[in-house]
Amino acid sequence: MSKTKEAGITVKKSEDFSEWYTQVIQKAELADYSPVKGFMIIKPNAYSIWESIQNYFNDRLKKLEVRNAYFPLLIPESFFKRESEHAKGFTPEVAWIENKDETGERLAIRPTSETIMYDSFSTWIRSWRDLPLRINQWCNIVRWETKTTRLFLRTREFLWQEGHCVYETKEDCDKETLMYLGEYEKLCKELLAIPVITGKKTEKEKFAGALYTTTIESLMPDGRSLQCGTSHNLGQDFAKSFKISFLGRNEKPQIPWQNSWGISTRLIGALVMVHGDDKGLVLPPNVAYSKVVIIPIVFEDNKNIILSESKKIFNSLKIFNPIFDDRDSYSAGWKFNDWELKGIPIRIEIGPKDIKLKQVVVVRRDTNKKEFIKITKLKNRIKDLLNEIQEDMYTKAKKFQDSSIQNIKNFDELKKAIDSKKIASTYYCENSNCEDAIKDKLNGVKAVCIPFTKEKSKGNCVNCNKESTQITYFAKTY
Amino acid sequence: MSKTKEAGITVKKSEDFSEWYTQVIQKAELADYSPVKGFMIIKPNAYSIWESIQNYFNDRLKKLEVRNAYFPLLIPESFFKRESEHAKGFTPEVAWIENKDETGERLAIRPTSETIMYDSFSTWIRSWRDLPLRINQWCNIVRWETKTTRLFLRTREFLWQEGHCVYETKEDCDKETLMYLGEYEKLCKELLAIPVITGKKTEKEKFAGALYTTTIESLMPDGRSLQCGTSHNLGQDFAKSFKISFLGRNEKPQIPWQNSWGISTRLIGALVMVHGDDKGLVLPPNVAYSKVVIIPIVFEDNKNIILSESKKIFNSLKIFNPIFDDRDSYSAGWKFNDWELKGIPIRIEIGPKDIKLKQVVVVRRDTNKKEFIKITKLKNRIKDLLNEIQEDMYTKAKKFQDSSIQNIKNFDELKKAIDSKKIASTYYCENSNCEDAIKDKLNGVKAVCIPFTKEKSKGNCVNCNKESTQITYFAKTY
Repeated sequence: MSKTKEAGITVKKSEDFSEWYTQVIQKAELADYSPVKGFMIIKPNAYSIWESIQNYFNDRLKKLEVRNAYFPLLIPESFFKRESEHAKGFTPEVAWIENKDETGERLAIRPTSETIMYDSFSTWIRSWRDLPLRINQWCNIVRWETKTTRLFLRTREFLWQEGHCVYETKEDCDKETLMYLGEYEKLCKELLAIPVITGKKTEKEKFAGALYTTTIESLMPDGRSLQCGTSHNLGQDFAKSFKISFLGRNEKPQIPWQNSWGISTRLIGALVMVHGDDKGLVLPPNVAYSKVVIIPIVFEDNKNIILSESKKIFNSLKIFNPIFDDRDSYSAGWKFNDWELKGIPIRIEIGPKDIKLKQVVVVRRDTNKKEFIKITKLKNRIKDLLNEIQEDMYTKAKKFQDSSIQNIKNFDELKKAIDSKKIASTYYCENSNCEDAIKDKLNGVKAVCIPFTKEKSKGNCVNCNKESTQITYFAKTY
Repeated sequence: MSKTKEAGITVKKSEDFSEWYTQVIQKAELADYSPVKGFMIIKPNAYSIWESIQNYFNDRLKKLEVRNAYFPLLIPESFFKRESEHAKGFTPEVAWIENKDETGERLAIRPTSETIMYDSFSTWIRSWRDLPLRINQWCNIVRWETKTTRLFLRTREFLWQEGHCVYETKEDCDKETLMYLGEYEKLCKELLAIPVITGKKTEKEKFAGALYTTTIESLMPDGRSLQCGTSHNLGQDFAKSFKISFLGRNEKPQIPWQNSWGISTRLIGALVMVHGDDKGLVLPPNVAYSKVVIIPIVFEDNKNIILSESKKIFNSLKIFNPIFDDRDSYSAGWKFNDWELKGIPIRIEIGPKDIKLKQVVVVRRDTNKKEFIKITKLKNRIKDLLNEIQEDMYTKAKKFQDSSIQNIKNFDELKKAIDSKKIASTYYCENSNCEDAIKDKLNGVKAVCIPFTKEKSKGNCVNCNKESTQITYFAKTY
């Protein structure tokens, strides 16, 4: 799969972030634009990241007694209309198909599956014994975006999982809405080494039709916050619209509570932005399918011995799904660059001197740090090193994010914070007019979330000066 | 997830196969009709079968160096038209969307992805070093069927995997086209306990645009053959249409050879039909997520001891993902029926007498055979028993299929064979006019395949009497 430009990344991450991002995505062979505007081709290097995310999360879902299912791609127009806020929020982005249902009704490609699922849930649920109902689906989603396409970040089609649960009580629903958000936070940390801010969306930014939306957000190096996943408490409105009810423990019919929650292939974009460097992609070990690449340093007179010793080492490291790069049409230096571009966490170089000394050279992708390791100790050292890399990558990203949250007291400070690529933490009156005003005055700055972890006291809204106890984060966003 | 009718299957498989099938699918909670005609909801019980298929096959794909990727849902109209046979074959079933591409071009929902993939392949492939290129994708497919919907068998949307490979030579392509077919045969046997017939499709029945199509077919109990998977050698026509070429070992530009191959959620329908019985679904152990259900037989005076002992046994059987059914709102008898309906391979009953004797009752779903097993020996016995069940289910299905292939010599015998729900094995002249004639005269009978395993000599075409060396299977088909 060559024909990508052999050259590495030609711009610096710190100088032209947007171009740097596109180059990493394309040159590390993660994705490409489709001939159809707004669509993307997810290439094997990125799809394997998505599979890591799926495997990790499916394991968690099993433990949490969530079951996977699959609902239809096409949704009747009348379903959208049933929950009015939801309809208002999604209709502008819906792609419709020419073929009509037998009833003559228009059909939409799913922009999310609440409506088609809840129509079924109304026939699945009868008594409190059927609750909680916990359903998840992995699928493709289409939203007819009109803004510029950004691979993984803004495309008309993306892949995601959407969880949809139904509960007896608001308490159960509140609790698990937060629990799934916690799962996302954990996934981002443990798998992707991405630190996130957890919080609640403002009324203006919440999901169309939700009671409230909780979110994980992560600050990208260009000073924009990226929404990485959301978990919505949907209240009882969808249940009412879709006639979901159950016979309660008191033998009386009741309306259940619902939540929905999702993460998408957007996380791959986050991964690239947070960890990548001027040489290309840097994969956190836990998400990398191949954690190690082995490059024999071959000269004509020692080719056989080097290759056979390298092969032995390759075989002893099978648990790391190593890549063995013995292509003879490329130089060792070219290979170093190539695998750095593709982000493999550890490189092992094996040359004639090393063989004599019964050692190899081990190089970390994230820091470029070199170690000489005795072959007998290699496997254990790699294991430890992968853990160290994972942890260090998280710590580094966490430090960046923590140091980028700035407490501000007035509009001038807000502007300064945004201009210096920070997240601004401020009191905010909770009136969405103020959000609109901030967005207008500061060229698209939005309320990121009302953070869960921030201690609250009292202050004045950054826009209207009204007294408020509500701290909110503002930033440029994706 | 109740609100399905509590009652079991109300018709016999042998008496009303079609109604029996629909009842098993719905009452075992495998799938349901969508409000949109022709679409289906794949419920968790069936989706977990699909996940077993995915996990099994992904393991194989890794070993065969096939990499998973994801291509866009929407395909520009011009792409379809590039390979004319392909366009002719698929255009009638394509669902188009209202939204146009920025260029004003019409967009189709993928009915298969050859065209959108090969457009990319033309930029991915440059030299013989890039070959073989082996790509697979798991995705949803839409084909606007107009015939009656049959859950899993004929729906407008289904899930599948489609493999697409590119080779230097026809020999490589021929070899791997057959290899993937062999993988399907193995998957059907090892995972689903379904015996298949392997063969080549006739010219009339081959994939639109293919050089030739190989197929796995399985005879269902109603005497209809079901195509369970196909592997196509696409020759060089797609490569020519999509301008895929590579610099050969001789330094000259060359046209590569391609294949594509797929299996779908249709396999779940096959599984139901082949193994199900009058009580419901029967899952082959290897495909069942939960291989065992444990049912404590509880009376008021011994409830605690039975439950605690059962729980111990449950914990000792964790490797089989057991279900522990301690619902106290249902009788033991009701639970037996419920889990039989859902096809769990082994039921373990634990009553007061059993506890005293340090044993349990083990019941096979496929044969209803009962055994008393000492608790100390339970885990090993279950392991063996699961293997026995898997093997016996395959053997039984194989015997049925083998005994249903009937050598026939003339049209009368062909008609009789079809009427008695057999596959007719006959000489056939390879002129598709004869296939058309047979289809007309015998109400939809089709050429199933030209079997690989059949010894050939010489005979006369069953329709036109012309001499032929080609044995072909004919049957009613799905």
